[in-house]
Amino acid sequence: MAIQHPYLMFLGDSPDQLAAKVAQGVAHWRPEWCLGQLRLEGCKADLKLPDMTLADAREKGVKTVVVGVANRGGVIGASWVEVLEQALDMGMDIAAGLHQKVADVPRLAEAAARNGRKLFDVRHPTRSFDVASGVKRSGKRLLAVGTDCSVGKMYASLAIEQEMRKRGIKADFRATGQTGIFIAGDGVSVDAVVSDFISGATEWLTPENAPDHWDIVEGQGSLFHASFAGVSLGLLHGSQPDALVLCHEPTRAHMRGLPGYKLPSIEEAIDLNLRMARLTNPDVRFVGVAINTSGLGEDEALGYLQKVEAETGLPTTDPVRQGVARIVDNLA
Amino acid sequence: MAIQHPYLMFLGDSPDQLAAKVAQGVAHWRPEWCLGQLRLEGCKADLKLPDMTLADAREKGVKTVVVGVANRGGVIGASWVEVLEQALDMGMDIAAGLHQKVADVPRLAEAAARNGRKLFDVRHPTRSFDVASGVKRSGKRLLAVGTDCSVGKMYASLAIEQEMRKRGIKADFRATGQTGIFIAGDGVSVDAVVSDFISGATEWLTPENAPDHWDIVEGQGSLFHASFAGVSLGLLHGSQPDALVLCHEPTRAHMRGLPGYKLPSIEEAIDLNLRMARLTNPDVRFVGVAINTSGLGEDEALGYLQKVEAETGLPTTDPVRQGVARIVDNLA
Repeated sequence: MAIQHPYLMFLGDSPDQLAAKVAQGVAHWRPEWCLGQLRLEGCKADLKLPDMTLADAREKGVKTVVVGVANRGGVIGASWVEVLEQALDMGMDIAAGLHQKVADVPRLAEAAARNGRKLFDVRHPTRSFDVASGVKRSGKRLLAVGTDCSVGKMYASLAIEQEMRKRGIKADFRATGQTGIFIAGDGVSVDAVVSDFISGATEWLTPENAPDHWDIVEGQGSLFHASFAGVSLGLLHGSQPDALVLCHEPTRAHMRGLPGYKLPSIEEAIDLNLRMARLTNPDVRFVGVAINTSGLGEDEALGYLQKVEAETGLPTTDPVRQGVARIVDNLA
Repeated sequence: MAIQHPYLMFLGDSPDQLAAKVAQGVAHWRPEWCLGQLRLEGCKADLKLPDMTLADAREKGVKTVVVGVANRGGVIGASWVEVLEQALDMGMDIAAGLHQKVADVPRLAEAAARNGRKLFDVRHPTRSFDVASGVKRSGKRLLAVGTDCSVGKMYASLAIEQEMRKRGIKADFRATGQTGIFIAGDGVSVDAVVSDFISGATEWLTPENAPDHWDIVEGQGSLFHASFAGVSLGLLHGSQPDALVLCHEPTRAHMRGLPGYKLPSIEEAIDLNLRMARLTNPDVRFVGVAINTSGLGEDEALGYLQKVEAETGLPTTDPVRQGVARIVDNLA
């Protein structure tokens, strides 16, 4: 798909900061791409980027307006359509991650057509995929897996890509969800792929590469999540990972969205992910554990990280507090 | 969806018997629904059903013409369209399991609309599903799982449903693939569901029921198949099986479509399926092993079945040669 940057981040009339979570992730990881923000009346979110009109954005060279906001039902606000249509008329593309497709809004589809502009609906795969071949391919791949959903897999992956690139290692983050796709400018929303093709889409996303090149693959869900484990397994098999990083959030009372379902232990998550991953890469190994300790105080966090490191024998770190250098050390 | 029977089996211009495999499965399991076959010039397949014209079929009370044939590319033959249009004009519905939708053929879509008839494209889900809740529900469920794809899971499931009904046990076969859907008259082609909803679609397909009612769920793929394991896992979690039956074909050199991938041992397949299934039903157990021994001679087959039974401690049978009575005995 290849979304062109730089971006103008469209926040619409977000009722709070959380509604702009996707945009915030993009601005955090690609500050050099995010030239400004456009907020409509009543918008309560703020990315601390310069506020811009569409005319400002065009003048600064913005290529794509990114709709990085969530709202109830994932629909495109009526008040947004006029602004987005103007953006198309001014020669910018639109990229959105809502359930409702911008391409399904007639005014926007027509405006894109008459201006020769592109509409990217990143939650909706626009191509078809082959069934996975399972054939071993060159290049190295690291996959972030989780004890649960939303435990920091994307953050850990991006931190690892950043650290590797800083060291001159060839590495590309491969996005499998909407925020990641805006950050990478490309990718596949794997949970929206027809289930026969989960692994095939992952093989397509992480093709053969130079022997010393690493794909850092964004994980999704968890093998222990009763709603989404199929997606996680397809991603695990399709990415044929050489290296795994386990991501975990230690304060959850139960699996996300599933009262009554307890989180697995870290040992159990390591063991099961290795067992399943060996099907397509018998040499797979864990290289680290990334803990989201945002729910713990500093001392408690450090104590917890040390405990997990002692139990697993793996570099264990909070990517936000401490970075991921020790995990990347362990890749060498 | 609820496809109305009785059926007229449309074989088109099938180049050989194999091309009519789906129709053959339906005729085998629902002989009382399949009143006749309609073959076009050059058809080399034969279900040994009475050959009928559309007029004959209408007179006999046929409700649905079932397109149970495969052809290269899964498209609707040009020579078929005229016949299928006539069937709609004569008041019959059409059900097809091709990749190309009959609903996408303008002449057929129009004929269905003007006659108030239905078009069933059983490979393509026509409804949306919720994400799986993982909540325990009443009723019992049995799922057929496999060491590989195409090892007899549908056959074993249907044989179990038949045997249970014969004994007066409440049992319903729940179809997850195209042939199964024609046989059940309803179902979900789970491999065509968007991957986020595999388990949710399975929960929908096997809803809560009377405590003594059994859903016999058709399995798909295998946890050991590098292309499709995600589908199998979603189905396993969503069906929350109380009972599992392992299906196996002992003469395969490698996993179907995956040279270089060996089949798992029966012990390994039992162990991994139990481990994964326990997430949504900790009390799950295997109740039998169904072996497709069609590739073995009689003596060899019996010897093999005895060996597996001794190794697993489970009733082990070839559903075709011996039926599944001993597996059903073990359900009680």
